[in-house]
Amino acid sequence: MHGGVFKPALPRRAHKTNRMLKDKTHTASDLLTGYFGVKVLDLAHILAQWSEQPDKLTCTYFSPPHKAVAAQLRDWMQAAGLVAEIDAIGNATGRYASSRAGAKALIVGSHYDTVADAGRFDGRLGVLTGLVVAEYLHRIGARLPFHLDVIGFAEEEGVRFSEPYLGSAAVAGRFDERILQRSDADGVTLASLLQHDGVDLAAIRALARRPETLRGYIEIHIEQGPVLLHRGVPVGIVSAIVGTGRFQVAIHGAAGHAGTVPMALRRDAAAAAAEIVLAVEQRCAKGSTLVGTVGQLVVPGGAINVIPGTCQFSIDIRAGDDATRDAAVADVLVAIEQIAESRGVKAEIIEIGRHGAVRCAPPMQSAIAAAVSRAGIEPFHLASGAGHDAAMFAGVTDIGMLFVRCGNGGISHSPLETVTESDVDLAARILLDVLLNLD
Amino acid sequence: MHGGVFKPALPRRAHKTNRMLKDKTHTASDLLTGYFGVKVLDLAHILAQWSEQPDKLTCTYFSPPHKAVAAQLRDWMQAAGLVAEIDAIGNATGRYASSRAGAKALIVGSHYDTVADAGRFDGRLGVLTGLVVAEYLHRIGARLPFHLDVIGFAEEEGVRFSEPYLGSAAVAGRFDERILQRSDADGVTLASLLQHDGVDLAAIRALARRPETLRGYIEIHIEQGPVLLHRGVPVGIVSAIVGTGRFQVAIHGAAGHAGTVPMALRRDAAAAAAEIVLAVEQRCAKGSTLVGTVGQLVVPGGAINVIPGTCQFSIDIRAGDDATRDAAVADVLVAIEQIAESRGVKAEIIEIGRHGAVRCAPPMQSAIAAAVSRAGIEPFHLASGAGHDAAMFAGVTDIGMLFVRCGNGGISHSPLETVTESDVDLAARILLDVLLNLD
Repeated sequence: MHGGVFKPALPRRAHKTNRMLKDKTHTASDLLTGYFGVKVLDLAHILAQWSEQPDKLTCTYFSPPHKAVAAQLRDWMQAAGLVAEIDAIGNATGRYASSRAGAKALIVGSHYDTVADAGRFDGRLGVLTGLVVAEYLHRIGARLPFHLDVIGFAEEEGVRFSEPYLGSAAVAGRFDERILQRSDADGVTLASLLQHDGVDLAAIRALARRPETLRGYIEIHIEQGPVLLHRGVPVGIVSAIVGTGRFQVAIHGAAGHAGTVPMALRRDAAAAAAEIVLAVEQRCAKGSTLVGTVGQLVVPGGAINVIPGTCQFSIDIRAGDDATRDAAVADVLVAIEQIAESRGVKAEIIEIGRHGAVRCAPPMQSAIAAAVSRAGIEPFHLASGAGHDAAMFAGVTDIGMLFVRCGNGGISHSPLETVTESDVDLAARILLDVLLNLD
Repeated sequence: MHGGVFKPALPRRAHKTNRMLKDKTHTASDLLTGYFGVKVLDLAHILAQWSEQPDKLTCTYFSPPHKAVAAQLRDWMQAAGLVAEIDAIGNATGRYASSRAGAKALIVGSHYDTVADAGRFDGRLGVLTGLVVAEYLHRIGARLPFHLDVIGFAEEEGVRFSEPYLGSAAVAGRFDERILQRSDADGVTLASLLQHDGVDLAAIRALARRPETLRGYIEIHIEQGPVLLHRGVPVGIVSAIVGTGRFQVAIHGAAGHAGTVPMALRRDAAAAAAEIVLAVEQRCAKGSTLVGTVGQLVVPGGAINVIPGTCQFSIDIRAGDDATRDAAVADVLVAIEQIAESRGVKAEIIEIGRHGAVRCAPPMQSAIAAAVSRAGIEPFHLASGAGHDAAMFAGVTDIGMLFVRCGNGGISHSPLETVTESDVDLAARILLDVLLNLD
């Protein structure tokens, strides 16, 4: 799994980019337009060279390409004037220190690990935007009333240990040490993986920031959906990270010969499931942040001439607030029971997780919205349907998120994932504005 | 595949049964009640001892258990006074000859091969009922105006070569010699399998009966469905063997993140499929012999947090007459296109087979119905939703079928398949009556 393809040689474009990092300084905001965008995209393309698979971007936790990306991020942070290191869990962290005594820290973070066959911007866009903005601040000598901590979190996708947010959980003080005993697909535990690398496990606990030391947490992220694209706006202010209710459902009816059982005598598990799929879809259309998905659906061992005796499927329901999500979940569960009863089948429902929605801090939303306005864009707020590292910091410090428009119909977790240079550039300038004007 | 478990030792009950085959003769019809039922069930239990799998009944074409069953049937036929042999394709055939010169032959047949993990009565019930009735006729010395040919067809289920009706097709003169080159799962062609057994392939063609030599074809078969059970009648006269239209459908929508794509922007392949499943169900509820089934249904590689981009399913539509079947198929195809268009998805539809319905000969239906009435049962006609060997003889000679009530909710192709001794006994007495009164 973690042998992979290691491509340390930088492409031609990379040399140009490294030069650009040391390019001439711009001071006026209008002169800045275009400055950040090209840098971030170039750096993202460089990071995409390291992959576990040829011709695909796959960079999972503690694989050789993953470690190479961490080292590259640390080196770029140091070159940008930050005090940088790779911490015990693998996060690449760099501080652009405040001049004030006893200053708090504002974290600008996102993750650098990827799913399998990933896009280049999911996570990395936020890390690199923080990096180029910090580099700019350092270059112009502008000090902030807080430390600026740019963090590339080592693990957010949960691919290797089926547990997301390892990096941000550690920094947010939410790392669950029981996960150290969890094994990857090769039977390697997280603890042994880290110890083999010389990590003192106690050092992970020490990564936790105390809330009183934090000024806030800001994350730039590609939207991973089509809302901004559809609306024609380059960026959006995240109002909340949705809560999720997840279920696995098995319908048990009666198998039978497709030719010999009259329709009226059937207890067809797939037909019942079909009715439920549509019930989920219809119920979850009633709410602006509400969505519902049946992503897994199968008649196990189905045959063309056999009435399905069993049908299995998943349900994933999300909303920007828990009350909306819970109301939809309750209605869907009632619908399942009604459909099962009317068809004489049995529904076996297992709730496999219900996670609360996380609201972005109103002051942080306001600060970001003000910067969006100053960039000449009408502020647009939307809920994030995907989870993000930011969620780990909710309740620890004020969180804020800015989404960048996702091209190609909003596709993510795919090599087709894309952003435009100008949207990224705008996001970076908005981040700079927020940092300069937050306090 | 064909090593299997060979159990030649007969159980205790078998010896009793073999004695019963030579038991005292009954001549009066009222004394016959109970005579056939116990015999047929005993013989079916004996045949079920030979299987390719321990603790399951699996007896596919030309496996060692399959050959053992053929030999046992031939031996029983000979013991019953028939002139019996195993023919070139593996059918066990036995003739109880007519005393008339130039008599035609009436075939009473069904198959002795099984599906995997089968029931004991599918096919074999018809062979054994023909056997015990022929044995009875021989014992009482009653000669018929036609030869009575009891045939156990070697292959009806199509398990080994994905082609059903090998045995009955050969006798009906419909054997497609191209199938000789077809391979089983181990790469063995039908031709090499037969030749390895010393079969002269030309002899298969010689099995074909000329229509003018046939008086008719009668098949007793377990219903394999719940209609008779639900209606509370022990036997049913088959009016037709349904025609089938079969399709494989793939819906292509747009995959997406289950959290980030608003409901209104989705092109969910599974939701479209669900709507089609219900459309098939609703349309096929409109017709007494019409049925429609989506037996295979899957979102390939589905994940709980991914909107299905693709969903695949099968459609199987059957009716007792082709016009009814074709009308339903046409409506379902229109519905698929409408649903696909309204949801912005693409439907890829492959028709994988459309077979015409086969009507049982009205004179044969009448003859069977008259015998049913004489047995004190109100005649009930129903269409067969499953295919049977009888279909091979339609157009060759007059066909008739009698269904026997299936227990356990009508389940077949399962070890739970069951019949009652009294229902089987009744069916055998009706067959005897038909044979004695047909001409």
